Amino acid sequence: MTKGYAGQFLRVDLSSGVCENFTIDEAILRKFIGGSSLGAKLYIDSYNLHADPLAPESPLMVMTGPMVGSGFSGTSRFAVCGKSPLTGIWGEAACGGTFSPEMKRAGYDGIVITGASPKPVYLSLADGVAKLADASDLWGKDIYETTDVLKAPDKSIKVLAIGPAGENLVKFAAIGNDKAHFIGRTGLGAVMGSKRLKAIIARGSGRLEKADDARYKELARAAVQEIKDSTLAGSLHAMGSDAAMVTGMFSGDVPIKNWSVGEDFDLSISLGGPTLSEKYLTRAHACSNCSLACKRVVVVKDGPYQTEEGPGPEYETCGSFGTMLMNGDLTAVIKANELCNRYGMDTISCGSAIALSMELYEKGTLSKADVDGLDLAWGNMEAVMPLLKKIACREGFGDTLAEGSLNAARKIGKDAVDSVVHVKGLDLPMHDPRGFHGMGLAYMMSNRGACHLQHAALATEQGMASWPQLFDMKDDYNGQISDEKAVLIYNSENYGILGNSLSICHYLIYVLQPETIRDAFNAITGFNLSFKDLLEAGMRDWTLKRGINNLMGVTSRDDVLPRRVLTPLTDGAAAGSVPDMKRLLSEYYALRGLDERGFPREEKLAELGLPELRSMLYK
Amino acid sequence: MTKGYAGQFLRVDLSSGVCENFTIDEAILRKFIGGSSLGAKLYIDSYNLHADPLAPESPLMVMTGPMVGSGFSGTSRFAVCGKSPLTGIWGEAACGGTFSPEMKRAGYDGIVITGASPKPVYLSLADGVAKLADASDLWGKDIYETTDVLKAPDKSIKVLAIGPAGENLVKFAAIGNDKAHFIGRTGLGAVMGSKRLKAIIARGSGRLEKADDARYKELARAAVQEIKDSTLAGSLHAMGSDAAMVTGMFSGDVPIKNWSVGEDFDLSISLGGPTLSEKYLTRAHACSNCSLACKRVVVVKDGPYQTEEGPGPEYETCGSFGTMLMNGDLTAVIKANELCNRYGMDTISCGSAIALSMELYEKGTLSKADVDGLDLAWGNMEAVMPLLKKIACREGFGDTLAEGSLNAARKIGKDAVDSVVHVKGLDLPMHDPRGFHGMGLAYMMSNRGACHLQHAALATEQGMASWPQLFDMKDDYNGQISDEKAVLIYNSENYGILGNSLSICHYLIYVLQPETIRDAFNAITGFNLSFKDLLEAGMRDWTLKRGINNLMGVTSRDDVLPRRVLTPLTDGAAAGSVPDMKRLLSEYYALRGLDERGFPREEKLAELGLPELRSMLYK
Repeated sequence: MTKGYAGQFLRVDLSSGVCENFTIDEAILRKFIGGSSLGAKLYIDSYNLHADPLAPESPLMVMTGPMVGSGFSGTSRFAVCGKSPLTGIWGEAACGGTFSPEMKRAGYDGIVITGASPKPVYLSLADGVAKLADASDLWGKDIYETTDVLKAPDKSIKVLAIGPAGENLVKFAAIGNDKAHFIGRTGLGAVMGSKRLKAIIARGSGRLEKADDARYKELARAAVQEIKDSTLAGSLHAMGSDAAMVTGMFSGDVPIKNWSVGEDFDLSISLGGPTLSEKYLTRAHACSNCSLACKRVVVVKDGPYQTEEGPGPEYETCGSFGTMLMNGDLTAVIKANELCNRYGMDTISCGSAIALSMELYEKGTLSKADVDGLDLAWGNMEAVMPLLKKIACREGFGDTLAEGSLNAARKIGKDAVDSVVHVKGLDLPMHDPRGFHGMGLAYMMSNRGACHLQHAALATEQGMASWPQLFDMKDDYNGQISDEKAVLIYNSENYGILGNSLSICHYLIYVLQPETIRDAFNAITGFNLSFKDLLEAGMRDWTLKRGINNLMGVTSRDDVLPRRVLTPLTDGAAAGSVPDMKRLLSEYYALRGLDERGFPREEKLAELGLPELRSMLYK
Repeated sequence: MTKGYAGQFLRVDLSSGVCENFTIDEAILRKFIGGSSLGAKLYIDSYNLHADPLAPESPLMVMTGPMVGSGFSGTSRFAVCGKSPLTGIWGEAACGGTFSPEMKRAGYDGIVITGASPKPVYLSLADGVAKLADASDLWGKDIYETTDVLKAPDKSIKVLAIGPAGENLVKFAAIGNDKAHFIGRTGLGAVMGSKRLKAIIARGSGRLEKADDARYKELARAAVQEIKDSTLAGSLHAMGSDAAMVTGMFSGDVPIKNWSVGEDFDLSISLGGPTLSEKYLTRAHACSNCSLACKRVVVVKDGPYQTEEGPGPEYETCGSFGTMLMNGDLTAVIKANELCNRYGMDTISCGSAIALSMELYEKGTLSKADVDGLDLAWGNMEAVMPLLKKIACREGFGDTLAEGSLNAARKIGKDAVDSVVHVKGLDLPMHDPRGFHGMGLAYMMSNRGACHLQHAALATEQGMASWPQLFDMKDDYNGQISDEKAVLIYNSENYGILGNSLSICHYLIYVLQPETIRDAFNAITGFNLSFKDLLEAGMRDWTLKRGINNLMGVTSRDDVLPRRVLTPLTDGAAAGSVPDMKRLLSEYYALRGLDERGFPREEKLAELGLPELRSMLYK
């Protein structure tokens, strides 16, 4: 058995209820490694790319990687992938937490789920045995309630579950792991809902075999020390990702009022990491085996937005339910976060859809009657809380927003579409490309649509990453120029994608020395891959997913930033600055080997060893 | 009468009680402009540089500038200067507030005070009439109490006063303006105390005449808009100077545990601007006529460190009584700030002296008996509060610390001196030169000793200043390299010094366009000075004060950083980095025209029109 892998994959057909194990050749593992890279390979080899995302034949894949379960910091990650119901193209999302190491211990590296069950079920994995069980009693329960029920027999059981939003096919429905970690982006919770799969639980006693345990231990210790020595890791441990709210306001990173305002320090004070820590934090929390511990546990004890003790909002949520809505009440953000977690909704897309609604309400495009009598004035969080329920349950105006910002705007009317800030149907995350031009290119070229995680650009463009030395690149950048950014993004994708396929946290990709990651991967797998091999795997991942998207209809016409972020801001640190889209794309296309249609050139496919894609694109 | 000036200066001899007005030729004003520049000119022309700072013959000068009283944002500034009792060389400090425009309205551009009164007095300025009055009843009162008494007849009276620390000749005694603004550095409050001058009050009805009122108004409006458009100004308005605590922790700017630790995000959360704003701020506050409004009004209502509503701590104080002491309790910082304000003590030097004591206490150099039974463990603020009173009143160990860190360490013993972090006897302000090498050079070369304000380096090296365009300089810098820093510091001094002589706030020097400042200055005075003229005035100021220091004994041997900040940190954003002192000094000496002794070369003195200094240095 290949070291670092549990060795078995699981295929589940929910229509028939058949579960069967299968294996993947080591030659394929060496090329695609794991995570969503391996998912994309399985997808193109065996499934119909043209099926509707919510059709039974579309697969949902839950994938770990070879470092998962090793105990190395930041490796308790997994990816869920398939076709996105929100964007209609390749969809994927990853998170940390507790599920993936347990799934490996239970004997599985990955699961591919097709079909649709006639009644609600959940999938149970335990030491190499997969079983489906009735989940009728769980249907309708929120993610926290579902998790509590499924963990009741044994707290060591790890749970993945959807809530009402996933059941009701909300296009940005999320999947939750143990009430604290969420597969949010691209709406794969709706795919799970369409299959009537309420949850997946895992419990196992397996132990990961490593190729060189002594060397691995040495590297795992080195990683702990590198985390200890890192300023970025220190700030994440102390303030969580919301550290970025205060610093981002100084650099023009934070979107405000649906991307129309450049600066509001009062908001960044009220919503930022220091205030979150001082007023609502009860303790820091970590994914399994991670010494960085960036997660927050918070509680709101007073006022109208009281919550139970639970996961605190990430920076993204403080943006999407804070600055984006002109809401400076952090308790309302924490409450909205709790509600999104319970219903199971991506906070970025959900908050962005509400920001869009508030803008259209202010402009008069939407009347009070159009929005079920709610007062959607900027910052009115009293109206946001019931709206969240309406979205999750597809009631009234909530049914419109449940389709996602772009689809909702198309339904509302043509002018509304201009106010949607998305790439390829995915709402932009909370980093303004006017402040960081490289991020603008990354948004245009990420395969799942506007994304801040399918590459290692974010902290790099902000001067806080260790990996650029690998390429003899600078380690400090002026965010507001487009020079040198195409090559930065190209390299940051090839390197950053490894986080996903190896299954190592995005933050660790910035914090750890590249050699430590490479050597630990090799000590676990024995693959002895060089940086060249690993970066080629990153290129292969990007190109394969791009090809899948091309086959689904994506062309160069889709590689564009929305008009809103090509309009200069008049205030704030990024005032007057917009990315040079044409130049960035032209330089990037050349590096990536894309033709003028935006397709990977045939020779690039040959070079990267993607014959399956080559035959489909150039048959 | 020269426009922009009240036209009269005041000479007060406290020994005889004689007050007499005098005027200064316009030719001198055009060369030295105002503030401490003009003070240095008066000093070298008429006073004994070798007298003890606390001797009656040493003058204390209170100087405004031509923009004061104009209504232009950020110009309610003044400087107090003379010989520093802390360092024994040129001393000066400036602050904003309410006093200087009132002093101008009362008819005075500057005051030079010599002698010593046989009994406590205060000086009263009202519409061209200066009078001394008995202050026996005020002696012993703190600054807040004194101010309340003196303002009781009329709230419009503006007050400068010292507290017990100034009376008791504490070497870092401060002078307070209206309970909210402080002349802190270099201990000039003790000079006031040595003269038994408890306070100066002003009330006037004069109006500043401007050369071109219409043009002035246009520029004053432009300045308000530039402030509105500035990210730096926005953050200062929203969070005060303490905004720098959070961002500084990311860049290695913040000193921790007497400069021995590189990073502590928990401290920066507890002490930073966002927490200050969320938990203790009641409102923002501004110096007279300033639209930036960076000052804080805060109150602590609960716990052991309750305060009345009053001025909140600046970033410097959150450093010196927070991170420097390993104290994360912001209420204790606010309380210590209030006590320093009441007693009248510079919070930087006072906190630094206490940090030194805590280090020596931990090392065993100081026993509990040595420090009057106080437990000076790191972070023990319960011991700090009584220690503040001991320092102000020179009781027990407080009497040792009242001499300042360097003198105290010399008294404690040789090894203790290595733990003092100072240049030329002045404790470093709260910006670590290991994170910003240019600041290291600025500390070495500032004429009052280690200083963050006698130049425009701070925000410039952090990439947030508008003035570098004037020199075709870059606007972003890597703090942790010494390349290009000598020329940056040289230019930033020549330009930044103008803040002092024109009397415009340090922050506005970063925020406003240089053209706006130049043109407003010219619209007020009609001097029609070019940038070349103004920068030459900056060079002249620096060189004159350097020459005064040379005459007082300063040589190149004094241009050194303390060993502590030449020792690399092992953690934090600046880990491993130290300024290249030799290179920085060599490049800077060449630019400044200093010989190997550290004296301005004779030709430089000729070039800058400083014949008085030339004849004294090269007689």
